[in-house]
Amino acid sequence: MNIILLSGGSGKRLWPLSNDIRSKQFIKIFKTEDGGYESMVQRVYRQIKAVDTDAAVTIATSRTQVSAIHNQLGDEVGVSVEPYRRDTFPAIALATAYLHDVQGVAPDEPVVVCPVDPYVEDDYFIALKSLSEQAAKGEANLVLMGIEPTYPSEKYGYIIPELKDTVSPVKTFKEKPDVETAKAYISQGALWNGGVFAYKLQYVMDKAHELIDFTDYADLFDKYETLEKISFDYAVVEKEPRIQVLRFAGQWKDLGTWNTLTEAMDEPTIGEAVLNDACDNVNVINELNVPVVCMGLKDVIVSASPEGILVSDREQSSYIKPIVDKIEQQIMFAEKSWGSFRVIDVDEGSLTIKVTLNPGHRMNYHSHFRRDEIWNVISGEGTVIVDGMEQPVKPGDVITMQAGCRHTVFALTELKLIEVQLGEEISVHDKQKFELES
Amino acid sequence: MNIILLSGGSGKRLWPLSNDIRSKQFIKIFKTEDGGYESMVQRVYRQIKAVDTDAAVTIATSRTQVSAIHNQLGDEVGVSVEPYRRDTFPAIALATAYLHDVQGVAPDEPVVVCPVDPYVEDDYFIALKSLSEQAAKGEANLVLMGIEPTYPSEKYGYIIPELKDTVSPVKTFKEKPDVETAKAYISQGALWNGGVFAYKLQYVMDKAHELIDFTDYADLFDKYETLEKISFDYAVVEKEPRIQVLRFAGQWKDLGTWNTLTEAMDEPTIGEAVLNDACDNVNVINELNVPVVCMGLKDVIVSASPEGILVSDREQSSYIKPIVDKIEQQIMFAEKSWGSFRVIDVDEGSLTIKVTLNPGHRMNYHSHFRRDEIWNVISGEGTVIVDGMEQPVKPGDVITMQAGCRHTVFALTELKLIEVQLGEEISVHDKQKFELES
Repeated sequence: MNIILLSGGSGKRLWPLSNDIRSKQFIKIFKTEDGGYESMVQRVYRQIKAVDTDAAVTIATSRTQVSAIHNQLGDEVGVSVEPYRRDTFPAIALATAYLHDVQGVAPDEPVVVCPVDPYVEDDYFIALKSLSEQAAKGEANLVLMGIEPTYPSEKYGYIIPELKDTVSPVKTFKEKPDVETAKAYISQGALWNGGVFAYKLQYVMDKAHELIDFTDYADLFDKYETLEKISFDYAVVEKEPRIQVLRFAGQWKDLGTWNTLTEAMDEPTIGEAVLNDACDNVNVINELNVPVVCMGLKDVIVSASPEGILVSDREQSSYIKPIVDKIEQQIMFAEKSWGSFRVIDVDEGSLTIKVTLNPGHRMNYHSHFRRDEIWNVISGEGTVIVDGMEQPVKPGDVITMQAGCRHTVFALTELKLIEVQLGEEISVHDKQKFELES
Repeated sequence: MNIILLSGGSGKRLWPLSNDIRSKQFIKIFKTEDGGYESMVQRVYRQIKAVDTDAAVTIATSRTQVSAIHNQLGDEVGVSVEPYRRDTFPAIALATAYLHDVQGVAPDEPVVVCPVDPYVEDDYFIALKSLSEQAAKGEANLVLMGIEPTYPSEKYGYIIPELKDTVSPVKTFKEKPDVETAKAYISQGALWNGGVFAYKLQYVMDKAHELIDFTDYADLFDKYETLEKISFDYAVVEKEPRIQVLRFAGQWKDLGTWNTLTEAMDEPTIGEAVLNDACDNVNVINELNVPVVCMGLKDVIVSASPEGILVSDREQSSYIKPIVDKIEQQIMFAEKSWGSFRVIDVDEGSLTIKVTLNPGHRMNYHSHFRRDEIWNVISGEGTVIVDGMEQPVKPGDVITMQAGCRHTVFALTELKLIEVQLGEEISVHDKQKFELES
């Protein structure tokens, strides 16, 4: 199975766990069998591989997520990077061209497109395989997954099938309705549209060439900035007469708000938390290394991260976005392809961060115009390169780097640094990257 | 006026702001005219000086609080250090001997004893002056302040006066009653006993010599460990027939719980906090440098500090002690005589702290057996002494110190360091102090 996972943009609906650079799909919130936690993207990837070991997974995403994806899924996964934010049609066209030109997928092979963050069980991925197989038959140009509604939701679009069979031609689509209209749709056998569909690769390549003047993947990538923003639904689905829908009756949840996310937690708390007996229906997600103590709370969600602390009534939590959008703050935590960093102190003229490099990885060879830096190695072993000079490092070693000096560090084992940045205008944008000669 | 302020022990009733080394009286929670915040001990000290510029203030306290006292009140204030924790009679005897032998207070001068943490207005300190003047008259051996009750409290002891006059002989004392009994006391004209009284210095010196075999302050200090734990009430007040009470009708509050403390706040929030419109009767005290966002909460107290995060229903907050007593954690923040430090990262084999030295101050000259340290100077100027070698330091300078190496730093201006500690067994107890030769 070829599968494209659409990994959507960042947002603050799950602040302080999500922010402008950390999307909800990367939050480690689901308990794993070994007692650790995995993120939505890790969970979905693991589930796909469990159902289809040979599945070729490609994640279609923006440049900002590439580091987090490789950090969480490793280097095996395919990534189709959207160099600019356009809508779903350009994104799916680009990812499909990537499958063809980079991954070598044949034109008549089926491709499944699916959001990266559904909260589902294995039966969902078995249904994706059926979707892929149905597309391979060529009875229709597009095969959609239709999810059997569990309540008359106003949040989803509806697919009206012609038949009650597992696979049916689509009669029509309906936009997000009000509750009464949703009830009427459901009585007619309507299904939720979860944004999941399959097609033969050539079909989308043809559509792409109809609408965009390009030669191949590399050309499409280079032109990406000039593309019109247009959704796949509008550009393709609504105009396509040959569409089938495949019915899926299993569990399907969209964990887009604190309310739905905490409902999916296996235990009421993650991280250090103490709840007294007078607490009722309280969830705590604490990413800090100090305890959260809750007393006498009812229907409350508490979340603490390096970015901030949320304490919200469960219902109210869906109104979070406009409130946190007003908060201007610097990024306090980020995952990178080579590891992660966390801001541990902010002061006038200095910024102190803790850097963790994964074994075998290194950051870019880079310099800064307007700040000096000091590395204090606190654990692990590695090699530092400063202005072309290589030197092994171990805990207790200190490396000082003046502004302008080119530097990187390569981790032999997991390597942790306390990095002290000194300068009047410290900014993440003050960074020049260089190629390493070697 | 000579005044002894009893500065009580540490505790966790106001966790995460108070802990084993930071008592509630040092939490900066009251808004000052210049827009900053002051602690209970700063507020009381300022109020005393406003009412009586010449007041000689001595704080009777344990060794652990001396740093915080000098940090918050400066070096002018007298401090009678209790080398061990005994009860109030030994503490008051020691402080009184300190006044006589160290401060040179004459035997017939009056002394006022008062807790360090009442939440009161200036009229209270005017009443303390009256108390002092009344003691000077010598009509009684002890003059107590009796606070006019505002409700039949079960939390306080009661003083029953003989007369309704401002000054009256005491008829009897009553232990903490139930509400009904309290009502009966109040109808008889009973007053709350707030633990405030005055005497002529010689009176307590005589009582001390009756019960303890000692020559002078230094001798009493040296013997302190051997003294019996006994309260001043039990040792002196209950046995004394010549006692007067002076009536005080002004505002008097004991801010010992989160509930009473937050009631005394001038504004609902301290520190970075955002409350949406659906919040009602919510207080936030946030000592972290990231925002706390509250949504749809009612009657809730939120407090965040480097030690942890409390989210509590207002009523429930009084049950905090047993819950936080179970939390074992390292001290994350401390005030010292020379400044303060805050733990900013804890990892296996390393601890990173931010050290702030006040101008003109230095830490002890010391060494560690089992850890190396690295100082990264991030702001200010000063002088570092390492194994007797002096060297000026400025931002960007790095000083590395192997285990065993003696070191200190003197701040010329406010000086900030990021200190990285490296070792397998990092402990605050691993510290040897030395005299500086110079």
